[in-house]
Amino acid sequence: MSYPYDHRPIGIFDSGVGGLTVLQELLEKFPDETFIYLGDTARVPYGTKSPATVQRYTIQVAEFLLRQGVKGLVVACNTASALGLPALRAHCEVPILGVIEPGCQAAVGLFQDGALATPDGDRPRCIGVIGTHGTITSGAYARTLALLVPEYVIRSLSCPLFVPLVEEGWTNYPSARLLIRESLQPFIDNPVDALILGCTHYPILKPKIADILGSATTLVDSAQAVALALNRLMGAGIVLPSAQRQFVHYYVTDAATRFREVAARFLPQLNMDAVEVVDL
Amino acid sequence: MSYPYDHRPIGIFDSGVGGLTVLQELLEKFPDETFIYLGDTARVPYGTKSPATVQRYTIQVAEFLLRQGVKGLVVACNTASALGLPALRAHCEVPILGVIEPGCQAAVGLFQDGALATPDGDRPRCIGVIGTHGTITSGAYARTLALLVPEYVIRSLSCPLFVPLVEEGWTNYPSARLLIRESLQPFIDNPVDALILGCTHYPILKPKIADILGSATTLVDSAQAVALALNRLMGAGIVLPSAQRQFVHYYVTDAATRFREVAARFLPQLNMDAVEVVDL
Repeated sequence: MSYPYDHRPIGIFDSGVGGLTVLQELLEKFPDETFIYLGDTARVPYGTKSPATVQRYTIQVAEFLLRQGVKGLVVACNTASALGLPALRAHCEVPILGVIEPGCQAAVGLFQDGALATPDGDRPRCIGVIGTHGTITSGAYARTLALLVPEYVIRSLSCPLFVPLVEEGWTNYPSARLLIRESLQPFIDNPVDALILGCTHYPILKPKIADILGSATTLVDSAQAVALALNRLMGAGIVLPSAQRQFVHYYVTDAATRFREVAARFLPQLNMDAVEVVDL
Repeated sequence: MSYPYDHRPIGIFDSGVGGLTVLQELLEKFPDETFIYLGDTARVPYGTKSPATVQRYTIQVAEFLLRQGVKGLVVACNTASALGLPALRAHCEVPILGVIEPGCQAAVGLFQDGALATPDGDRPRCIGVIGTHGTITSGAYARTLALLVPEYVIRSLSCPLFVPLVEEGWTNYPSARLLIRESLQPFIDNPVDALILGCTHYPILKPKIADILGSATTLVDSAQAVALALNRLMGAGIVLPSAQRQFVHYYVTDAATRFREVAARFLPQLNMDAVEVVDL
């Protein structure tokens, strides 16, 4: 039997600030773990790029984190999870956690736990997914959900302007609210039972989305789902826990000041003293 | 004396589709010139990136176009013009035309031609500039205008969400109009005499901006200004004209289909048959 602790850090990455919503959840749920976060801010957004490009970027970022000696990788970016995960799993030896499977399991779990009532009459259960162009057109959520719950109706929608709204901090203007409403119109006209926020930037808009869609739709936040999934990996001994947090370090590929500003606006509780710029 | 014609193409580039507004103007005004356009779509947007990164990208793109044998370069991207032009001029031997000086000259020309009346009373003449974060914080417009017309009041404003609105084709929704209005609020509260659209994406929003700001403000479009500047370079024999258009070729660094779609939405008159993906 291997030693029951592994004090190496956990690597976590996103194209920009979005993955910080996942990091924040992990910091809270795993107070004894050390984390290294990388935001690929020189190449954000991933959501509009081609699959081949996203794959190349994902592997470059993972290689950087592996060189820092991480014991596991959290791909806290839906586009990178949707398009880069198979290539990444073929490429590296540490356990890798994406955001798509956890999100799907959390959505399905809502029905199975009884948290969501069975729809009235014969209407099938319905799960919606919102994400970037790249995530939605990859079909990764629809495929994963079809395997888990083939009898459910799955509806996908890309909301490409939500990432710029968050990255620019333009979330409290009336135009932001109207833009979110217009983007979600298909889910206002025909509500879904559960809606997966299939982009790690979207939890920052969660209160507004919840307000617009109302109580008929339960929102599923990848950040919480990933924390549950990491807990399962630890329970199964696939990732061994650490016993004391040593540090949290942030890397970006460009413009550290801007990254710090955007992060501070949305996640002021994160301590951003150590942000270093690296060239991948 | 050198031969009076030069049939080599003119290179023109932008981070994405924005520069096509400049290309369209040049195609119309210079029917005998051949053009090669490059959209750096793998790395769009430039406007949020650091000066060092924008400089590196600008030089990489220019080197690619120089290898295609261009006789001159049009930097149809305000961020690249603001941050990359001095490095680029030190780096290559063909004439280079940015968008900032032509835009400033066109704005100042409005007053000097008498196209704009002298303000009532003692109020100084006032020129506004809108652009990306990168362009505005570089101060390139403010510096250039201060040299040309030190007695004018210059007011700058970054409108970072206009590029995503255009790139996503989200321009005809009520939220887009509201977002443009909210962004321009300082120029609604205190109008400027002339407003330079300091980003090549913005001419696509020109009718809406004109409608919101009203007749008190005259808009200055870089595309038209660049065509005038190229005409001056030809008049001075710095760039020799061609006598017949041979081709127009498009290169992108990622996702040709998406580039073609976005371009077709805004500039349907451009023939996008030849779009090739290159890796810089």
